[in-house]
Amino acid sequence: MSKRPLVTLLTDFGTADHFVAAMKGVILDIHRDVDIVDISHDIPPHDIFAAAFVLNSAMSYFPRFTTHVAVVDPTVGSARRPILVMTDNYNFIGPDNGLFSYVYQTETVNRVIHITADYYFRQPVCPTFHGRDIFAPIAGYLAKGVDPRKMGEPITDYVRFDVPRPDVSNPKRLRGAILHIDRFGNCFTNFTKEHISLAALRAGGRFLVIHPQDPAKSREVTKFVTHYAEAQPNELFALFSSTGYLEIAALKVPAARVLEARRGMEVQFIVP
Amino acid sequence: MSKRPLVTLLTDFGTADHFVAAMKGVILDIHRDVDIVDISHDIPPHDIFAAAFVLNSAMSYFPRFTTHVAVVDPTVGSARRPILVMTDNYNFIGPDNGLFSYVYQTETVNRVIHITADYYFRQPVCPTFHGRDIFAPIAGYLAKGVDPRKMGEPITDYVRFDVPRPDVSNPKRLRGAILHIDRFGNCFTNFTKEHISLAALRAGGRFLVIHPQDPAKSREVTKFVTHYAEAQPNELFALFSSTGYLEIAALKVPAARVLEARRGMEVQFIVP
Amino acid sequence: MSKRPLVTLLTDFGTADHFVAAMKGVILDIHRDVDIVDISHDIPPHDIFAAAFVLNSAMSYFPRFTTHVAVVDPTVGSARRPILVMTDNYNFIGPDNGLFSYVYQTETVNRVIHITADYYFRQPVCPTFHGRDIFAPIAGYLAKGVDPRKMGEPITDYVRFDVPRPDVSNPKRLRGAILHIDRFGNCFTNFTKEHISLAALRAGGRFLVIHPQDPAKSREVTKFVTHYAEAQPNELFALFSSTGYLEIAALKVPAARVLEARRGMEVQFIVP
Repeated sequence: MSKRPLVTLLTDFGTADHFVAAMKGVILDIHRDVDIVDISHDIPPHDIFAAAFVLNSAMSYFPRFTTHVAVVDPTVGSARRPILVMTDNYNFIGPDNGLFSYVYQTETVNRVIHITADYYFRQPVCPTFHGRDIFAPIAGYLAKGVDPRKMGEPITDYVRFDVPRPDVSNPKRLRGAILHIDRFGNCFTNFTKEHISLAALRAGGRFLVIHPQDPAKSREVTKFVTHYAEAQPNELFALFSSTGYLEIAALKVPAARVLEARRGMEVQFIVP
Repeated sequence: MSKRPLVTLLTDFGTADHFVAAMKGVILDIHRDVDIVDISHDIPPHDIFAAAFVLNSAMSYFPRFTTHVAVVDPTVGSARRPILVMTDNYNFIGPDNGLFSYVYQTETVNRVIHITADYYFRQPVCPTFHGRDIFAPIAGYLAKGVDPRKMGEPITDYVRFDVPRPDVSNPKRLRGAILHIDRFGNCFTNFTKEHISLAALRAGGRFLVIHPQDPAKSREVTKFVTHYAEAQPNELFALFSSTGYLEIAALKVPAARVLEARRGMEVQFIVP
Repeated sequence: MSKRPLVTLLTDFGTADHFVAAMKGVILDIHRDVDIVDISHDIPPHDIFAAAFVLNSAMSYFPRFTTHVAVVDPTVGSARRPILVMTDNYNFIGPDNGLFSYVYQTETVNRVIHITADYYFRQPVCPTFHGRDIFAPIAGYLAKGVDPRKMGEPITDYVRFDVPRPDVSNPKRLRGAILHIDRFGNCFTNFTKEHISLAALRAGGRFLVIHPQDPAKSREVTKFVTHYAEAQPNELFALFSSTGYLEIAALKVPAARVLEARRGMEVQFIVP
């Protein structure tokens, strides 16, 4: 087995400035023998929900014991806590602002630690860049083998936002929601194959995207495909995306624009 | 010699989403001791020709036995085949859609394998993301040392598009074409130093970029430079680019816009 | 200690083309066991001053003996020299055009070498891509352990631009300048905590950003914060940025646009 620990980075820092490189330098300066992989640095600024979705879409493909560092941190410098989340498979490091909400749902969480051991921080800690001065050093010392229990005290009141699950109480009309809209305007719902069968789709199951203000703008999506090449340009269609979630998309135009979609909007599945 | 295999990635996935990271996670999960280098993830979406050109411009600088994974795959999920191309120097993994057309011209190809060994795939294979479920795992298992001949069956009818070569039948008027236009509007022709001598250029050799619809829009390029600082702003000029191909460019303005250039347009070299 | 040398790259090449990958391929082909970290490839094209600032903001976080390769090189192919700067902590490789001006101020420089040993270059050297044919190979051979003194001859007349320091001759009115404007329009001055105390700020110290043409457009900044969440939207404020420099910024709008700011503009600190 490799002796090199693996660390991933997910931020909204972009790649034009020095921020990401400074974090990598800090990690490598603490523990030189580490492999660092970028998940993304192009999360829309301060968009914790988008970051949580992207983290959830990427994290599980990495080897066990990978440390995922995520820094989308609009309230950096305030009282929000830095945390270390330990699950059966991974460590997660970042601000306690809901960024790990999907982690709490999909991983077996063993411990959430409020990071307080400033012995491991870069000093003085800059109130605008905890990525460099707190999160990167903690990742570096974990990679070096420091016991995570030395990083702080366990907490249970960590921040999590609700990742809505479909309401299936009416088996003929499942009520889901849009979890995420990507930069191409593809809309990811919270429906998975657990809720919707291929049989129901092929028998004429259809989707209603409910416009919250104006019912006349609600739209029906009747086409279901298994891969993009099956769809026609400009036509709305549904497919099971590679994330596992049912996606409403269109070729050539952003589906979110056609639908006037926003995160959280209701999507119904009408069972035939 | 290092025990770490080297894998490069070239896609049109962009870096805002989880796609590239998912591929890296899959590779690293199969074989932890590998170095992964990005060629580019900003190929214009679905532009197989641009991807083929960029791959050709980068591949040969990498150490022998590097595995190049290229995924620009507009028909993912359809019947197009996944392939593994083995040359004297490298392995190439990707869809059989013409992406390796330059490889077939410039490398000594020993074997092209239709990848069928689904034993090595991530299951279930998602029809929209073969990058993660077929190409990345194959790269991972190759890195781990699995014999490529176990990946599938040799084929000879792989897809290749024509990379046009200049017509030199009239030695006073060579007929070439534009192979690639980069994001700055620089136009790469298929002329190399094999076709055009510095002597001919210095003696007054000039280029004609032929507008296919409107001859009045065809443009003459008479200036030749060896490096960009020699050129004047807004002036069209020719130089031998670092790819080896003769490039028609301009400072401050995109040459492609001035020329109304499209990939495939004819460029003539008039020998003085 | 790790046997893997560490090389960073900073360029204005972008990531859409093959340029950065070609450099990495060349380095890895010369010395396979190296770790390469990107600082940024999105420096505004040809902006030596911005590159110098970003390099300065990132370099010191890397482990000792890291080699920093920086290629923002508008006059590539002309007579400007390739250089290797050796300091107590790092090696720097790039063109002699002022890119290392901050390095000369903040590091202890032991030797600046005009790189002339074309034995180590890729041949033939392309006059438009010294990044690939000179700087990357030199980085590769340094990583391989070649003695830097074999790379060329020491020089003392290397190019450096003036990184202005505040004029503190009038202790009630310090005169500084804008060093850098980032892509969000944040303006980094050359004031640090060495010049401006928190006490003076809290007692009502304020900034004047002097518009060079039109005094009516000069602006006063009276708000000082320690982290972004303290500021109100659209309001100009000052804070000590994570680079150590005092920054003038705004939420939601680019401060540089509000101020009509340009690099080099005077900023005064009025001590209460």
